[in-house]
Formats: sequence, structure tokens, C-alpha cells
Amino acid sequence: MSQSAKKHGSGCPVAFALDTFGDRWSLLVLRYPMLRGNETYGEFLESGEGIATNVLADRLKGLEAEGIIDKSPDPDNRRRNIYRLTDKGLDLAPVVMEMIRWAGKYDSSREARKGNVRLIENDSDGFLASLRSRLTGDIQ
Amino acid sequence: MSQSAKKHGSGCPVAFALDTFGDRWSLLVLRYPMLRGNETYGEFLESGEGIATNVLADRLKGLEAEGIIDKSPDPDNRRRNIYRLTDKGLDLAPVVMEMIRWAGKYDSSREARKGNVRLIENDSDGFLASLRSRLTGDIQ
Repeated sequence: MSQSAKKHGSGCPVAFALDTFGDRWSLLVLRYPMLRGNETYGEFLESGEGIATNVLADRLKGLEAEGIIDKSPDPDNRRRNIYRLTDKGLDLAPVVMEMIRWAGKYDSSREARKGNVRLIENDSDGFLASLRSRLTGDIQ
Repeated sequence: MSQSAKKHGSGCPVAFALDTFGDRWSLLVLRYPMLRGNETYGEFLESGEGIATNVLADRLKGLEAEGIIDKSPDPDNRRRNIYRLTDKGLDLAPVVMEMIRWAGKYDSSREARKGNVRLIENDSDGFLASLRSRLTGDIQ
């Protein structure tokens, strides 16, 4: 995302949303703690998309500054942080779910038909509820 | 969006979706024909976000190549094109709606509370149905 394109103040809610999380890597980074639960920095890096360490660090910092994720020391290893979604971040789950649903319809590759796509197609409310309950459980 | 980050082939549906429409300007361009109906090039340019002509031309071309919008000569002025959403593009409306709903919750500016945000909060199914019916009506 071009920085010059941000914070234009048009008042459009789509633009506001995109100013907050609307670049490709931010959304891909968000997806990890959303679909799999809390993540360490290393788990983000190993997630197979080939994100560069500087890009990952930048996006995590940006998402933290926007209050979409927060980090705290891992109880199992205090030298490591655990990243998790805040409520504001969890409220983006419907956006990501609708992307998954759309991709399930238009991506002809077999991979896209698996896992979360089927879950969302069959029971999107249930999927969202289980996500919320799992993530809230992680925090408590 | 960095071109090098595209088409990684991970099979992840979120990545597929972002490869197709996932940069800020593509989504902002998409929003116009989605929320207001078919658009001319001039109407896109005048939409107040300050999009540069070369960026607009590039994103329209990309969205057309992905089959999300198509263009045809304006019956009122054959030297001008009208852009409209295809079915594949219209199926992105739930993604944009969920962004609007999220922004309505977290954008504290007064502008964001108006118009489409209220409609979507009050009756999202009805909003989607009216969008679909209006756009389909435009085509027929």
C-alpha cells in the first residue's frame, strides 16, 4: 500500500477499513492468528507464504499500532512473544470468512476446496462462533 | 501490492482472494460500481479519493483481466465506456459489506456512521439483495 494513499479522510468506511488493514501482507498476517490461534513470530515466518522478516516485523508492528493484535511474553519461553487478536481484530473474521467463501467459489485449484472453505460453506455462523470461543479461551 | 508477492500458489483461499483484488486501490475502485451502480471512467476519477489516472487505468485493467468488472460502450455516448460488475465481482459484495460493518464499529468519525453503514447494520441481507437486484437490473 502506498503510504501517500492512506489517511485521506474521505469518511468512506471502505477506505477507513483499507487504511487500517488493507494491504496484502497485513491481511495474510492477520489470517494466521485468526484461523489457527495465537502465534509466535517464528510460526508466522514458517507459514509458507515466503514473507520476508522485515515485512513481517513491519506488518506486525502496524497491526499492533492499530490495536488489531497484541503481543505478550510466551509463558513457556519468556524470551519469545505470543501474538493474538484483540476484539477489534477478531471482528475482522467476517471479512476474512467472506474472502474464503469467495475464493472457494472462484479458485479452481483443489487446495482451495478443502478445510475452512467447506466449514464456512456448511455453517458460517458456527465457524465464527467456534473461532471466537477458541480465541477467547486462549486469552483466559 | 508487490507483484513478487503474488501467485505464490500456496493454495490458501485468503491468498487467492488477495491475489485477485487485494490491494487498496483495487478494492476502492471495486466499491464504486458495487455501491453506486455502473460507472464511467470520469465518475471513478471524480470520486474524491484522489486516485491518479495511471493507477485507476491499471486497476481497471487488472480487475477486467480477472473477470471482476467488464466494460462496454455507453449507449448515451459511444466514445465513452461504462464499467460494471460481473457476477464474480458482485460476489465480492459480502467482503465489502463486512468491511463497512467493521468500519462502522471502529471508525469514530461521524461520516462513517451514515448511509451504507446504517443500512448494513439494520438489514444486511436486504442490502445485499437490493444491490444484486439493482445491478442485475442495470445489465438487463
